Amino acid sequence: MINKMISKIKKLDAPIVVGLDPMLDYVPEHIKRKAFSEFGETLKGAGEAIWEYNKGIIDSTYDLIPAVKPQIAMYEQFGVEGMVAFQKTCEYAKSKDLVVIGDIKRGDIGSTSTAYAVGHAGQVQVGEKKFRGFDEDFLTVNPYLGSDGINPFIDVCKEEKKGMFILVKTSNPSSGEFQDQLVDGKPLYELVASKVAAWGEEHMGDDYSYVGAVVGATYPKMGEVLRKIMPKNYILVPGYGAQGGQAKDLAPFFNEDGLGAIINSSRGIICAYKQEQYAKFGEQGYADASRQAVLDMKEDLKQAYVK
Amino acid sequence: MINKMISKIKKLDAPIVVGLDPMLDYVPEHIKRKAFSEFGETLKGAGEAIWEYNKGIIDSTYDLIPAVKPQIAMYEQFGVEGMVAFQKTCEYAKSKDLVVIGDIKRGDIGSTSTAYAVGHAGQVQVGEKKFRGFDEDFLTVNPYLGSDGINPFIDVCKEEKKGMFILVKTSNPSSGEFQDQLVDGKPLYELVASKVAAWGEEHMGDDYSYVGAVVGATYPKMGEVLRKIMPKNYILVPGYGAQGGQAKDLAPFFNEDGLGAIINSSRGIICAYKQEQYAKFGEQGYADASRQAVLDMKEDLKQAYVK
Repeated sequence: MINKMISKIKKLDAPIVVGLDPMLDYVPEHIKRKAFSEFGETLKGAGEAIWEYNKGIIDSTYDLIPAVKPQIAMYEQFGVEGMVAFQKTCEYAKSKDLVVIGDIKRGDIGSTSTAYAVGHAGQVQVGEKKFRGFDEDFLTVNPYLGSDGINPFIDVCKEEKKGMFILVKTSNPSSGEFQDQLVDGKPLYELVASKVAAWGEEHMGDDYSYVGAVVGATYPKMGEVLRKIMPKNYILVPGYGAQGGQAKDLAPFFNEDGLGAIINSSRGIICAYKQEQYAKFGEQGYADASRQAVLDMKEDLKQAYVK
Repeated sequence: MINKMISKIKKLDAPIVVGLDPMLDYVPEHIKRKAFSEFGETLKGAGEAIWEYNKGIIDSTYDLIPAVKPQIAMYEQFGVEGMVAFQKTCEYAKSKDLVVIGDIKRGDIGSTSTAYAVGHAGQVQVGEKKFRGFDEDFLTVNPYLGSDGINPFIDVCKEEKKGMFILVKTSNPSSGEFQDQLVDGKPLYELVASKVAAWGEEHMGDDYSYVGAVVGATYPKMGEVLRKIMPKNYILVPGYGAQGGQAKDLAPFFNEDGLGAIINSSRGIICAYKQEQYAKFGEQGYADASRQAVLDMKEDLKQAYVK
C-alpha cells in the first residue's frame, strides 16, 4: 500500500491528502436540507448529510489526489450513524482507487491494540468466517504506550500489506508540553522518531517503510531534524493552510528524491467554497471549489518538493 | 459524577470497576449459538453475542459494583455492529445505575478533541436539536498532545458534570519506553501527573476532581509517588489479576481516607467461568461465576484500602 501511495503521488505529481473532516456547519444548506427532509434533524440525518458532502468532494477530486484522510472523531460525534457515514466514506473512496488514511489516533496495549488494528485494517473472525469491520489502508497511531501498543498494529499491517503513521510531533501549539521535553539532551519527539525508524525496518516497502510518522507543518525546523532521523519513513504532515503552515516551510519534510512526505489539507480543501478566493463557486458549487483548491495546492506545493 | 462514583464506592464498600472487554471467544457457546442462529455468523451476530454476554454479567453484578468500563476497541473490531453493542451496553449499564467509564483512550487537538468529547460525553447539535451519540460518564484520554488535547474534554465534562481519566503510567511492560524517560531528573509520567493535578483543579467535585489518572497496578512503587503528586485525583488502576497486579501491591494507590483509587478487573471477572476456581459454575453459569469473582475481589481488595 505504501508502494501504491508513492506511485500515485508520482503519477499525479501531488503529495496531497485531503482531510475529510466534516463538521455539520461545513455542509452546504442544500445537502443538509435534503438529508433532513428524508431522515429528519436526527443523527441519521446528520450522518447522511456528511456522507453526501464527502461524496461530492471525492467525486470532484479523486482524479487529482492519491489519498484521503477521514478524521474519525468528526464521524464518531454522531454516534453509530456517524460511524456508518465513516464506513461509507472509506468504502466509496476505495472504490475510486484512493488510498484511505484512517485518522483514528488509536493506541492501547496487547489484545486491545490488536482489536483496533483488526477493526480498522484487518479481518475479524466470527465463527468460521472473517469480516472487515472498518477498512482503511493506513491508520494513525499514538505512541505513548510504547512497543506494546505499536507491535500489534505492525503485525496486522504486515498481513494486510497496509501501513500506519505514528504521532511524533503534532501540529498544535501545546504539543511541546510533553513532546519537546529533553531526554538525555534531546527532545522526546526525536526519541519517538528513532523508534519509528526502528519499527519501520520491520515492515518495509520498496523504497519506504509501511510505518510512517506524523509531524506538523507548523514545526519546519523540527521537520528537518526528523527527516534525517527517519529517512525511510513517510511523513504525514498536517497543519498546512488553515493551521498556518506554508508551502515554503515544507521543503525540509521532503527527501532529495522529492518524496517522503504527504501534506494534508482539510478545511482548506473541503471548505474552500467558504473562502473569499473561491466564493464565486457558491454553496452549490462547493465540490468544484474543492477541486480548484486542490489544483492550487498542487501548484503551491511544488516550491517545497521540486528540488 | 465523581461524587456519585465515590458515594457508590463507599456504600458498596467496593472500589471496583468491571472491565467489559468481550472477545468473542470469551462468550459462552449457548449465547453465540443463539445469536448466530438469529443473525448468522456475521458482524451483526457477533455484536448481538457480545451484547447478550455483557447483559448477563451486568445483571449478575450491578448491585455489587459502582462502575463498569467497556473497552471500546473490543466493540470497534466488529465495525458498526460492534459500536451498536457498545452503545447498548453503556445504555443498559446506566439503566442499572452503574457509572460507565468509556475506555476509549482518545486524544487529538482542538475541534477534533471536542468532537470526541461531544460524541462520548456530550451532546451534538443537529439543526435545532441536540443528541447524544454515545453516552459515557467518564472517558479515558491520552495526554501525548498536551493541553490542546485535554482542555476540550474538560470543557465538555464541566458542562455535563462528567469526568475523565488521563493516561499517566500504563500497566504494560513497554510503558517505560517513553513514559519513564527522565526529564529534568524525573520520569515523564511524573510530569504528566503534575499536569493532571493542575488540570484537575479546573473541574473539582466535593473531595476529588472530575479529572483522574490511569496508573497500572503493575507499578506499585510508581503508584506511591504518583498518589502524592495527585492527591485529589482519582486513580483508575488496570492490571489487577490477569496482568499480574496483586491486592497487597495496591495499597499505595489509596489515600488515608481509604479512597482515591478504583481497581479494574476485566478477564478476571468476565471470564471467571474459565478459571479452575470457578469451573463449577459451568458455561451456562458464567454470570454467576462473575458474581462470585466480584465478591472474592471485594474481599481481596480490603487488604489494600482498609487502613
